[in-house]
Amino acid sequence: MLRMAVAILPEVRQLLREDPSQLGALMEEIHDEDLADLLGLLDENEAAQILRTLKAKDAATIFERLDEGTQEAMVEHLGIESIAPIAAEMAADERTDLIEGLPDQVGEDLLERLEKVDPEAAAEVEALARWPEDSAGGLMTTDYVAVPLDLTVAEVIQRIRTAAAEAETVYYIYVVGTSNRLLGVASLRDLLLASPDDKLGEVMTENVFTVGPDTDQEEVARTMAKYDFAALPVLGSDRKLLGVITFDDVMDVLTQEQTEDVQRFAGVEPTEEGYFNTTFWTFIRKRGTWLMVLFISEFFTGTALRHYSSVIEAVAKLSFYVPLLISTGGNSGSQSASLIIRGLAVGDVKVTDWRKVLVREFGQGLVLGLMLATVGMLRVWMWGDGIGFVFTIGFTLVAIPLMGCTVGSMLPLLLRRVGIDPATSSTPFIATLIDVLGIVVYFNVAQIFLAHVIAEHLPPH
Amino acid sequence: MLRMAVAILPEVRQLLREDPSQLGALMEEIHDEDLADLLGLLDENEAAQILRTLKAKDAATIFERLDEGTQEAMVEHLGIESIAPIAAEMAADERTDLIEGLPDQVGEDLLERLEKVDPEAAAEVEALARWPEDSAGGLMTTDYVAVPLDLTVAEVIQRIRTAAAEAETVYYIYVVGTSNRLLGVASLRDLLLASPDDKLGEVMTENVFTVGPDTDQEEVARTMAKYDFAALPVLGSDRKLLGVITFDDVMDVLTQEQTEDVQRFAGVEPTEEGYFNTTFWTFIRKRGTWLMVLFISEFFTGTALRHYSSVIEAVAKLSFYVPLLISTGGNSGSQSASLIIRGLAVGDVKVTDWRKVLVREFGQGLVLGLMLATVGMLRVWMWGDGIGFVFTIGFTLVAIPLMGCTVGSMLPLLLRRVGIDPATSSTPFIATLIDVLGIVVYFNVAQIFLAHVIAEHLPPH
Repeated sequence: MLRMAVAILPEVRQLLREDPSQLGALMEEIHDEDLADLLGLLDENEAAQILRTLKAKDAATIFERLDEGTQEAMVEHLGIESIAPIAAEMAADERTDLIEGLPDQVGEDLLERLEKVDPEAAAEVEALARWPEDSAGGLMTTDYVAVPLDLTVAEVIQRIRTAAAEAETVYYIYVVGTSNRLLGVASLRDLLLASPDDKLGEVMTENVFTVGPDTDQEEVARTMAKYDFAALPVLGSDRKLLGVITFDDVMDVLTQEQTEDVQRFAGVEPTEEGYFNTTFWTFIRKRGTWLMVLFISEFFTGTALRHYSSVIEAVAKLSFYVPLLISTGGNSGSQSASLIIRGLAVGDVKVTDWRKVLVREFGQGLVLGLMLATVGMLRVWMWGDGIGFVFTIGFTLVAIPLMGCTVGSMLPLLLRRVGIDPATSSTPFIATLIDVLGIVVYFNVAQIFLAHVIAEHLPPH
Repeated sequence: MLRMAVAILPEVRQLLREDPSQLGALMEEIHDEDLADLLGLLDENEAAQILRTLKAKDAATIFERLDEGTQEAMVEHLGIESIAPIAAEMAADERTDLIEGLPDQVGEDLLERLEKVDPEAAAEVEALARWPEDSAGGLMTTDYVAVPLDLTVAEVIQRIRTAAAEAETVYYIYVVGTSNRLLGVASLRDLLLASPDDKLGEVMTENVFTVGPDTDQEEVARTMAKYDFAALPVLGSDRKLLGVITFDDVMDVLTQEQTEDVQRFAGVEPTEEGYFNTTFWTFIRKRGTWLMVLFISEFFTGTALRHYSSVIEAVAKLSFYVPLLISTGGNSGSQSASLIIRGLAVGDVKVTDWRKVLVREFGQGLVLGLMLATVGMLRVWMWGDGIGFVFTIGFTLVAIPLMGCTVGSMLPLLLRRVGIDPATSSTPFIATLIDVLGIVVYFNVAQIFLAHVIAEHLPPH
């Protein structure tokens, strides 16, 4: 796809130099997302210059879409005084994210200034900032349309007309009683289908799906995706309506969770920014930690091999098969682990299913092991290492996937059972565990099938 | 979260036996998604019995949400005659998926029957079935609201009222000219904000984001998530409006793509159904293929080690470090690979950025390598393997992550360049490649730093 911002960059730069008054007309034609993208491509002075030419309301919709780094730079360039009116026009959830993303002192100064410019906007930030960023409370917005119960459909539609400019979503109308207690929801579609004189109470649904403010964002996203909700209300105690989560935030959560999953499976601490927006040293930290943990845990393979040093010294050929065997264990183990971890995340698999999982994975490990053993034994025979090796490798190749599948599937369930998120890099750990177990199995099998060969080559006592 | 369907299952079973006429009242209170879930839990006779008691329109909204297996079973139980009116009431895209998911002959029979019951519904299926399932054409629906240009806002709202019961989305209105050519889009919000006498032409936006029918579903999802679109029109040649993709389908695509990514990274061919809905032998096939490919490619580690057999026979201790070294190469390589693959998927990284990526990854490999080497050398010294080993392992531990990072980052870019999807299991391949390269580097470094030790133990020629 052509990147719009890159395409218009030269023209924007030329207008900035020669005729800034023409910018407004050009910018009206372009989606806010592309304008935000454009601001990221310009240097900070140019970007600040563009924001200055815009009305606060227009600047706000672009500002919402800038990444944290650019937002911070713009706050620095334009100053708290100019940013406060822009922040006041931003959606409540985006305004909160902006203030939370700024360095502590700057954020506090901006909030203080906001209290003077628009006390209501400041109060919204204080209400939303209470919740962690990755919870329902951190995702929700307070820019929704709430109406009392005693209106007619025509009156509600009139209310929506007034609210449409401000609200983040007008497609669901929330019916509230005293203390903002949620009584029901009506979709704009329901309202359009009803007769204008109908009572709101007859049109609304009372049986509403809701979440609490501390629900994890991944669960929110899964619920909305499953039930096809465009918006989901967040309720506090006494069914008090705290805010609404809209589908656009959920699409972002799903994209972000996908990136995090991919990174975690590869043993990288999840990064918040894109590849080129993450600094060199952040990557070193995010990658180095796991790489070091895995490196140190792999020391155990050295310890295990050392334990069999006399056998290896007697038959050096045994060591030629170690990488093949342990990588097979690692591969089968991480297959099982990721199937189960993903099953847990999507809700297909529950911890209580462990017996069913164990039976399945044991069976799969056995079948996969027999397949690999057949091919493996053939290869050993072709290498001409003798019948003792053929059987050693054959037996080990049945045992290792069997172990990989059972350990790989049970460990995530066990972690979940004791309250640890199994997606947090359990896959590479499982690989290490199976590496060590694989070595132990291999040399024990070898000591059976190759007993005479080993005895022959052992130095006399 | 409590699973609604499980909670109500006993009550539904009791009503089915004792008083089926009461079922309707209970079912009205429950979300279609939970009813679909419930039907999956019941046995096929019970599920068919419930569908029979419902009006075609109500049965359709549940039927849309059943998985393919249950749909097929219900078609078998109820017969083509009873299913056709239900299918006619389903959303056009879901109706198409149903017919495509059935065994060929059954699907054709149903379509034929549909042509008699509701020729328009059959024609929609024929129009949608042309496009692959994972393309924009496969995602879109034809149930949208299209209006001609010469209406006033009040007239458009009147049209929406009539269409609301049928259309999948009423929140965007598509303005079309002759031959369904797309002229513009107006959101329902825009229409509510405008005065009823305004001309549609003044309210609509002409600058509309669109995709072609063959656009990949992942690109569609990314575009909609990026720009926060609730719906995206699909245009054919001459800007002819073919259909509309709605946000709920995109949320499903994002969830599905996440599952596929996780599975691919673990070397499992993506499965379409959940863990327990995938049969034993499907898993054996999906896992076995990759496991076998990786197993056979790992034979090269054996070949590489065999090449250094005289060195290993002379100093068996060298083999103790092989698993540690190759797992480090694999880990650093798969870190880089997944960062780049994800960057390519999200659009952060382009193939043309390869030089920038190479510089970054070379730098990171070097720093990470130096970190690991420091710890590794300390461990070797503690194991008491002597200064020759300390330097051999130290140098190898700088070289291996350097190689892992550069190969791991460049290979996905190369694959993308030649038109292969790098997400398709390139990570485990990279691990195998780096395993072999790691062995070669290690023994060559050893032959330098341990030359005298090796010479000492080599058997006389």
